[in-house]
Amino acid sequence: MDAKLITIGQQAKAAADQVALLDTTTKNKALLAMATALEEKQKQIIAANKEDLAAAVDMPKKFTDRLMINAQRITDMANGLRNVARLADPTAKIDKGWITADGLQILQRRVPLGVIGIIFEARPNVTVDATGLTFKSGNAVILRGGKEAIRTNTSLVNVLREALKAKHLPENAVQLVEDTSHEQAQKMMNMTDYIDVLIPRGGRGLIQRVVKTATVPVIETGAGNCHVYVDKDASLEMATNITVNAKVQRPSVCNAAEKLLVHRDVAAKYLPTLAKALTDHGVQLRGDEVAQEIVPGMQAATEKDWDTEYNDLIMAVKVVDSLDDAVSHINKHSTHHSEVIITDSLSRGQDFQRRINSACVYVNASTRFTDGGMFGFGAEIGISTQKLHARGPMGLDQLTTIKYEITGNGQVRH
Amino acid sequence: MDAKLITIGQQAKAAADQVALLDTTTKNKALLAMATALEEKQKQIIAANKEDLAAAVDMPKKFTDRLMINAQRITDMANGLRNVARLADPTAKIDKGWITADGLQILQRRVPLGVIGIIFEARPNVTVDATGLTFKSGNAVILRGGKEAIRTNTSLVNVLREALKAKHLPENAVQLVEDTSHEQAQKMMNMTDYIDVLIPRGGRGLIQRVVKTATVPVIETGAGNCHVYVDKDASLEMATNITVNAKVQRPSVCNAAEKLLVHRDVAAKYLPTLAKALTDHGVQLRGDEVAQEIVPGMQAATEKDWDTEYNDLIMAVKVVDSLDDAVSHINKHSTHHSEVIITDSLSRGQDFQRRINSACVYVNASTRFTDGGMFGFGAEIGISTQKLHARGPMGLDQLTTIKYEITGNGQVRH
Repeated sequence: MDAKLITIGQQAKAAADQVALLDTTTKNKALLAMATALEEKQKQIIAANKEDLAAAVDMPKKFTDRLMINAQRITDMANGLRNVARLADPTAKIDKGWITADGLQILQRRVPLGVIGIIFEARPNVTVDATGLTFKSGNAVILRGGKEAIRTNTSLVNVLREALKAKHLPENAVQLVEDTSHEQAQKMMNMTDYIDVLIPRGGRGLIQRVVKTATVPVIETGAGNCHVYVDKDASLEMATNITVNAKVQRPSVCNAAEKLLVHRDVAAKYLPTLAKALTDHGVQLRGDEVAQEIVPGMQAATEKDWDTEYNDLIMAVKVVDSLDDAVSHINKHSTHHSEVIITDSLSRGQDFQRRINSACVYVNASTRFTDGGMFGFGAEIGISTQKLHARGPMGLDQLTTIKYEITGNGQVRH
Repeated sequence: MDAKLITIGQQAKAAADQVALLDTTTKNKALLAMATALEEKQKQIIAANKEDLAAAVDMPKKFTDRLMINAQRITDMANGLRNVARLADPTAKIDKGWITADGLQILQRRVPLGVIGIIFEARPNVTVDATGLTFKSGNAVILRGGKEAIRTNTSLVNVLREALKAKHLPENAVQLVEDTSHEQAQKMMNMTDYIDVLIPRGGRGLIQRVVKTATVPVIETGAGNCHVYVDKDASLEMATNITVNAKVQRPSVCNAAEKLLVHRDVAAKYLPTLAKALTDHGVQLRGDEVAQEIVPGMQAATEKDWDTEYNDLIMAVKVVDSLDDAVSHINKHSTHHSEVIITDSLSRGQDFQRRINSACVYVNASTRFTDGGMFGFGAEIGISTQKLHARGPMGLDQLTTIKYEITGNGQVRH
């Protein structure tokens, strides 16, 4: 194990013990101080970012767009921290309390997870977002961002740490792994003695690598092969609006729809309208045989399409015989993120919601609402597609665990 | 991947989808039918058990005691199922619901995890207990018990499956892996496509093997290096009662205490009394230097002792300089199961409860209360020593996850 990483781990654990005991006011003041510090030090952050951008001159524009930091983006990051300061402190909650038959008082408290590792790509805003959310929930964070953003991330983390230090708070609550090699990331994923949970943030490749190789527990986020199912009792207008919104409003994100299933009874009537609306928005359609018959010129979908998350203006279309077929297809091919049925039938809507095995199951609304902000959580660290610990949008609460505090007056067990 | 195991996995998944939709009354009737069937078929179960016992004739008595089944034990197992039938159905709960700013109605429902794998040793009662708890919470279970109990387990599972079948319910909700080889267990631990969570039940060796090698998510249970800390403000009588109870009432279990820490200010006065009470109960003590000075003849504790879970009548004793020292020592060496401070100081009790990083932190009560039954959960599948998903005693609730059901009237995102 790498000596530098062990030091980071030990420092994080020590800081986590301290941060866990801070009261809400102290944490909020620190978040506001971090926000102010980012704005005050924006020149040095932007200068560091310019160096990263200069080194990334050969990268695609989409990549450098995400890497780039300017005054506005710094203000946005600072306001993000201010927003987190306004949210309820999850560790200020006692979930429940009761008295046992033996007269013990048991309180189920919310407590921080401890040390959270974030592995992400070249999006410097994750550095600040993750710091805000982990700190507010009483955790320490170890950040490992992509190598192309290392100068920016180093500058940001220095500013955040200085702000903590100035408040006499443990600066090691926020640490950056400066060696951005794959070997170092791999070692970080196995630091079971120092990291309580890893949350990878980024593309599918990154997340799968972490899930497959980490021995530290991982919360898997962001895989979204989302389905829109247009039922036979659907309004065509609503079906069109929701399908188009779910597909095109922001096609690169995990809650965008990738598949369109249409009930056989309405396929001939609805599919031409749906297809036209989608292609008018630049969507390339790939259909099964029946869909291709109904909409001539549609490309053929292959078996692989049903499992593919395009994150692009592509949508595969399938005509299904029944609600049962739709449910079976979705439960087989989905990444269990978000799915929607468009229907005016109460019983069929209920049936779909109960039987679909996904984090978020919609009736008559766009899958694009699967988001901590839209759900009213105030902020999110990601969208979990696993069943254990956290499922769906993860806000501050999901960065905590519980502890039972039991108080007696001498009870022993008989 | 083994064809037989894949079939078991596929059958479990299909059964899980069905069991998840059963209403509470149907599940309860099935549990009662399983209980009756066990009692009615007790002859064949006991006959199978006799064959297991005959084959295990060379095993230690402690082992065959656990393996043995008689009429009383069958009644106990049946009553266990009846008890689970009486408990609240965790999947009948809607945790919360709200309306978002966009007018979406969101319900956070409790839903089953899906397929639960249980890997355990030669205790046939686990077969019935685990079936009852997983079925009541709407899950399917794949059981893999120790090879010494295979005839008993096969007989039990056949009876339980027949009872389900007679009620026209999916018998594949309960399946046994009949090949008890290590290779097969290893394959089961990697069935990520079919098993949602693995819960190992048994000794430390078994649990560590599962935690270290499984790719299916594991809930780690049962490791208990529990500490009693006698503070300077403790009542000597209460300290003695609780220490003796925590150590000797059932030394083989995970919530029994393994370590005794005593504050320096009271060590000279308290330790002789505590040591005598423990040795009177047959406990072998191992002390640090100071403890050895105070109680002559006490064996020396080695560094390894502080990390050892004896599960036996052995206790290591350490004199600490302060509450801080006690907290540091415990957070470093504990398995984060259960710890207790004996004190009459409110502030010191609070301090200990907040700073100790364990699932259950007691003031003035025996650690032996860490138990689903004692906590009032009605039953337990184990005691989690991890922070993610479940922590502390795990009842029916911990065998579920959440699902968001979102209902709109055409909302799209802008």
